[in-house]
Amino acid sequence: MYPEIDTPALVIDLDVVRANVTEMAKVATTNDVGLRPHIKTHKIPELARMQVEAGAVGITCAKLGEAEVMADAGIDDILLAYPIWGEPKLRRLAALRERARVRVSLDSPDVAAGLGRLGLRTGSPVEVLVEVDTGMHRLGRPPGRQTADLVAEIAAIPGVEVVGLLTLAGHAYRSRSWEELLEISRREGEDLVATAELCAREGVELREISVGSTPTARYAAEVPGVTEIRPGTYIFNDTTMMRLGVATEETTGARVLATVVGRPSPERVVLDAGTKCLTSDGLGSPGWISAVGLPYLHMEFLNEEHGVARLEPGHANYGELPVGSRVRLVPSHACPVLNLFDVAHVVEDGEVVTELRVAARGAVR
Amino acid sequence: MYPEIDTPALVIDLDVVRANVTEMAKVATTNDVGLRPHIKTHKIPELARMQVEAGAVGITCAKLGEAEVMADAGIDDILLAYPIWGEPKLRRLAALRERARVRVSLDSPDVAAGLGRLGLRTGSPVEVLVEVDTGMHRLGRPPGRQTADLVAEIAAIPGVEVVGLLTLAGHAYRSRSWEELLEISRREGEDLVATAELCAREGVELREISVGSTPTARYAAEVPGVTEIRPGTYIFNDTTMMRLGVATEETTGARVLATVVGRPSPERVVLDAGTKCLTSDGLGSPGWISAVGLPYLHMEFLNEEHGVARLEPGHANYGELPVGSRVRLVPSHACPVLNLFDVAHVVEDGEVVTELRVAARGAVR
Repeated sequence: MYPEIDTPALVIDLDVVRANVTEMAKVATTNDVGLRPHIKTHKIPELARMQVEAGAVGITCAKLGEAEVMADAGIDDILLAYPIWGEPKLRRLAALRERARVRVSLDSPDVAAGLGRLGLRTGSPVEVLVEVDTGMHRLGRPPGRQTADLVAEIAAIPGVEVVGLLTLAGHAYRSRSWEELLEISRREGEDLVATAELCAREGVELREISVGSTPTARYAAEVPGVTEIRPGTYIFNDTTMMRLGVATEETTGARVLATVVGRPSPERVVLDAGTKCLTSDGLGSPGWISAVGLPYLHMEFLNEEHGVARLEPGHANYGELPVGSRVRLVPSHACPVLNLFDVAHVVEDGEVVTELRVAARGAVR
Repeated sequence: MYPEIDTPALVIDLDVVRANVTEMAKVATTNDVGLRPHIKTHKIPELARMQVEAGAVGITCAKLGEAEVMADAGIDDILLAYPIWGEPKLRRLAALRERARVRVSLDSPDVAAGLGRLGLRTGSPVEVLVEVDTGMHRLGRPPGRQTADLVAEIAAIPGVEVVGLLTLAGHAYRSRSWEELLEISRREGEDLVATAELCAREGVELREISVGSTPTARYAAEVPGVTEIRPGTYIFNDTTMMRLGVATEETTGARVLATVVGRPSPERVVLDAGTKCLTSDGLGSPGWISAVGLPYLHMEFLNEEHGVARLEPGHANYGELPVGSRVRLVPSHACPVLNLFDVAHVVEDGEVVTELRVAARGAVR
């Protein structure tokens, strides 16, 4: 399997990626919302351009470093879904604004004050989205009165313009049923729309209602009043998306190609991919790492450089997967896996066609 | 705190690192064993040289890519503690052997056969250590008869020379008491020594008995017959080493400098360092991330770019750690954290003195 690639290696299936990109673009069109994919999943400018060419209104980044790489590649509409704080970052943001339309999300007057100084200095207000906590309990205040008060406070700061509300229903990743996932998705949209209506009654008109992780995007997009979805993982999917019912092994587009390097016992298979390729995300949860086409091989644990898997009894013999065999592994969480590789190998129609640099890898700031 | 460094950032305390390097070198001298530190923890040639200058006999690497970087920096005695398999890697190994003494560990005749072909081709047998499973259940067969049989089988392969036995008592990381840790350390050494004696009686003399993770190295080194210890984490330590009782917050030398970017509620503190800086290793176990000097701040969860922490009731007010405050975080597992940063900032006597490139970062192959 792909003998021209040494292992471990990151392999991207371009056919799968194209289909995933097209499908989510259609979700946006059908629901008349903007699609602003989060590029943290791939960190690859060529794939961001593919998303924009397929109809995305722009992209979402978490870090300035990611946004700078994407602007270098010609992407000119960027949401920084992260509170940008401190002079070094504000200087970089100022430079970025000279070559792209940039919006920033935040949840505090402190962060807004810094952006406001930048807005005043440059004579162009910084457009911000106020983050709302719809149940993830990370950033943001709860929807309704508390967020409306925060919006009013931030809207009063010179140099910033509050253009909308933003949330990430990250708690959807813990959904235990399809019904729960749909309910979280619906609430994600409705809570923001209701809060925006409250803000409007109190004098702050908000034109952007931005929602949506990969599991919730398709359903939150259907809520009237939602204007934008920001899924990221959908381009590659992973076993978490499979577990949530929004992907199958066939729609996973980023796999780690690994080689068997040890067969210490009939049932134990040791692979050359560990957490340095797959991360510890999801470690040990059922099916957290999937071996494509090998349902009888179960990952038991990962160390940095070793993946230790177990063959089911009917397959537990040395003839199965001997040293040198190759296995394709679907990660639990695609996004941090891309952050571990400098280069991705791209396959199309089963053939290795090119390499892509993971140009925004390591953009911690 | 370190205003010249933007966050999140990796900060290495050189005073702590020097003390840790010196202490472990003394452990080796006192017990008359070789110290061969695993450089996967730091991945920085300058620190490998510091270890060698302090008395290490050489270094341990997991991957050829790490070894190549270290050889570039003049390190000329390298143990590749990983089964090297396949022609691309064997070609690289051949090149590496032209500029350094290289040994390889393995646990199968298949891997030995490839190395043997290389040994015959180059007219210089490849020195190998046979890996033994002393309880971690990763690579290797159990000590005693099963390993002795494997040693005999590998010793019969032309082009390889079995020079010793190697183990990693990784199950020591799960020790629940000091007594258990000491028992695992003692067994780690004694099991290998007894197995080597069995091999000798059957005609294969082994001169190297290589043991030792950071938690076990100090105690396994005391076992008569052990010749070499291979700790890695000791150079930086982490909260896992603190939990095991072999480090304190004061002896941790690699911290992630983070900034508070959100204070959505009186008790919640959101930091700009998540799994992209700290990994998911140890996620959620008690004290898995420690905030230096802030015992009342408890990390609740990490997402890729967010660390969400909670203040204890007595400190849960907005005056505590406002937006912009800086926090130093001790990771659960130092080694994979280094793999996430291109550059480490180095402080000495409380001042930022230089940057070091994490030159072997991302060496997956």
